[in-house]
Amino acid sequence: MEAAILTIGDELLIGQVIDTNSAWLASRLNELGIKVKIRISVGDNADEIKDAVKNAMNLAPIVITTGGLGPTSDDRTLDVLCNLFDCKLYENQEVLKGIADLFAKRGYILTEVNRRQALVPDRAKVLFNKVGTAPGLYFEESSAHIFVMPGVPFEMKEMFTNAVTPYLKQISGNKIYVHETRVFSGIGESWLSDTIKTWEEKLPKDISLAYLPTPGFIRLRLSYMTEDELMGRQLLNKLFDEVMPLVHQYFVSNIDEPIAATLLREMISSGKTFCTAESCTGGFIAHQITSIPGSSAAFKGSVVAYSNEIKQNFLNVNSETLLQKGAVSEETVKEMAANALKLMNTDYAIAVSGIAGPGGGTADKPVGMVWIAVASKNNIETQELKLGGPRDVIIARSAVSAMFLCLNVKRKEDK
Amino acid sequence: MEAAILTIGDELLIGQVIDTNSAWLASRLNELGIKVKIRISVGDNADEIKDAVKNAMNLAPIVITTGGLGPTSDDRTLDVLCNLFDCKLYENQEVLKGIADLFAKRGYILTEVNRRQALVPDRAKVLFNKVGTAPGLYFEESSAHIFVMPGVPFEMKEMFTNAVTPYLKQISGNKIYVHETRVFSGIGESWLSDTIKTWEEKLPKDISLAYLPTPGFIRLRLSYMTEDELMGRQLLNKLFDEVMPLVHQYFVSNIDEPIAATLLREMISSGKTFCTAESCTGGFIAHQITSIPGSSAAFKGSVVAYSNEIKQNFLNVNSETLLQKGAVSEETVKEMAANALKLMNTDYAIAVSGIAGPGGGTADKPVGMVWIAVASKNNIETQELKLGGPRDVIIARSAVSAMFLCLNVKRKEDK
Repeated sequence: MEAAILTIGDELLIGQVIDTNSAWLASRLNELGIKVKIRISVGDNADEIKDAVKNAMNLAPIVITTGGLGPTSDDRTLDVLCNLFDCKLYENQEVLKGIADLFAKRGYILTEVNRRQALVPDRAKVLFNKVGTAPGLYFEESSAHIFVMPGVPFEMKEMFTNAVTPYLKQISGNKIYVHETRVFSGIGESWLSDTIKTWEEKLPKDISLAYLPTPGFIRLRLSYMTEDELMGRQLLNKLFDEVMPLVHQYFVSNIDEPIAATLLREMISSGKTFCTAESCTGGFIAHQITSIPGSSAAFKGSVVAYSNEIKQNFLNVNSETLLQKGAVSEETVKEMAANALKLMNTDYAIAVSGIAGPGGGTADKPVGMVWIAVASKNNIETQELKLGGPRDVIIARSAVSAMFLCLNVKRKEDK
Repeated sequence: MEAAILTIGDELLIGQVIDTNSAWLASRLNELGIKVKIRISVGDNADEIKDAVKNAMNLAPIVITTGGLGPTSDDRTLDVLCNLFDCKLYENQEVLKGIADLFAKRGYILTEVNRRQALVPDRAKVLFNKVGTAPGLYFEESSAHIFVMPGVPFEMKEMFTNAVTPYLKQISGNKIYVHETRVFSGIGESWLSDTIKTWEEKLPKDISLAYLPTPGFIRLRLSYMTEDELMGRQLLNKLFDEVMPLVHQYFVSNIDEPIAATLLREMISSGKTFCTAESCTGGFIAHQITSIPGSSAAFKGSVVAYSNEIKQNFLNVNSETLLQKGAVSEETVKEMAANALKLMNTDYAIAVSGIAGPGGGTADKPVGMVWIAVASKNNIETQELKLGGPRDVIIARSAVSAMFLCLNVKRKEDK
């Protein structure tokens, strides 16, 4: 099955908002085995919305729209669809009750404008909005399936997951698309591809492999369309088991998640704690970890030592080390890690010091030179990175590499 | 003038990549006074690219494409355009020299595949790529203007800014779109709109106002199409001067930049230093600041005190305070700021402690309750925030509010 995604809203055409809804929907549709053929964004203009819906319906049997469902005059999606499919609006009592309950809970008064949100077209099925006021709609028009959702990302995601997905599964038959993912770090896309070439060439024809790279790590995804989910998963896991001996040293996780989540999960499950001492990453590792709910169970804190003074006073880095070896050196990052471990009283400590650029590089220590270290009670490991790219990419790659080193040190000790 | 943006690449249709090129281009085109009518994304499929280009050309006189220009077989844009506009390919010596120079600089060997990138259509003007290998193209076909660029964001941005923009200015005549922006914080969009309503209603008809909100702050942008840039800027600045008395307490900056950049700039220009002591923001403020090149000139570091132990041992927060008032309290955050200031030896210290959720809330201290404090040599100010939304939004808003409080404390002292 194929789908078209249509996102609606002036804000998408003036660059005010990055269209994250499209990427999220594309990813979910792919997981359901539905191929996205085109993505279109238009503004809040009735004629343009109408043309875009018709165009999308010509291109794919499933059309998914977001946005333009608010109660104000610049929200035009509902009018356009009523006109296109020749519908009448009626006040849906269940929708109205939902809106009234939401307003009562928040202590707001229900105005006429809000009440208008309960008007829905008579020829559509209602997709109830459990976290907002604008209901979604499902039009089934001669083998075309049009799903209409609000543009607010968390409302859209809730509705797609709970109200749209069951219909999509029904439309695409009993078959489901099964996926298994393995996350790797410390190896580039082309090297990984060379390493697993023979395995990849022998994959069964009905199983597809995708390389999904992000700065510092890469996800490999196997997908298989089947009626038997359990059997499908077993098959994909077996295939991954076959390739693991070739790439085990780069393995991060068999869950599709950021590396901070893998590290945190393994720390929590073995009752260990950790901390960071960050120079060039400037708190980015701490931020990545504390973005995850429940991180305080294993993560105790960080010293962002952006000046030598803080490296000395908060992390007891020897002034002689800084003077003779410099802030970006194996010796300094070793002291940062070892002392952070003791001072913050944790089982593991991650330290990073480097030159993120664009300024600050020298012939000896160019931009992109980064030292990382991980200390544990019995061990300390270091690594030198030579990274390219702009400042944000150097920061992101340093953070991923440092977390990966910590995972590896911990896994070796757990053996 | 109107434009259509067409982004090309399978990765855009499987949700692997968020289409940031579209938003960036839309924003730049709007600044040039060119209205974006539609954004389309299609995969690496020749027929679909061809249909999309034709569709885009029907909708707008200017068409801007990104992606599909690489040297491998899945990059189809060039073939499609040659076919559509009946062109022949020739090896452009200037492009070839640029590629050879780039490879020499990086120490790579020039292969046949790379050399193929120098083939360009005879009916297009070449847009030289100064930071990559794929050249861009400009087709001028009977009042239609088609600009073709690579998909790698930093290559595309460089090419659009230096090679495409001059042509666009020429196409849209000598008039340019002048913009002035004011950034505000501590006030919601609807409240700001109410406060400045009378001023907004009296704005000249040929001047447009845009509200551009992001979590924690909001940008107001005035735009005016003129032939006289200097006069235009003066007019917009004069209009903003008129509204400032109504909103001066929310004013952040007259430069369109993140609040971290404003804070850093004002610290550096007055030779002051600062640091942070972060609990619920988990290093996000430090990360925002250290993402800016040159931040080490004013920012000395941060203690991310995610556990009470770190609050006590690294920030000398009194154990009695933590016991009696709790980690999320005015007293704790005051001690965090005052002690960070002394221990890190800075002119200003920002402290944050709160409950970012989704867990950890109580009846007394619900999720979204956040205390912020800013200390200076002679002063300490605190503020309680009651925030809604998911964890990442609570973290982002807390960070913005804390940086805004620091700006205000500093500005008061500078008077």
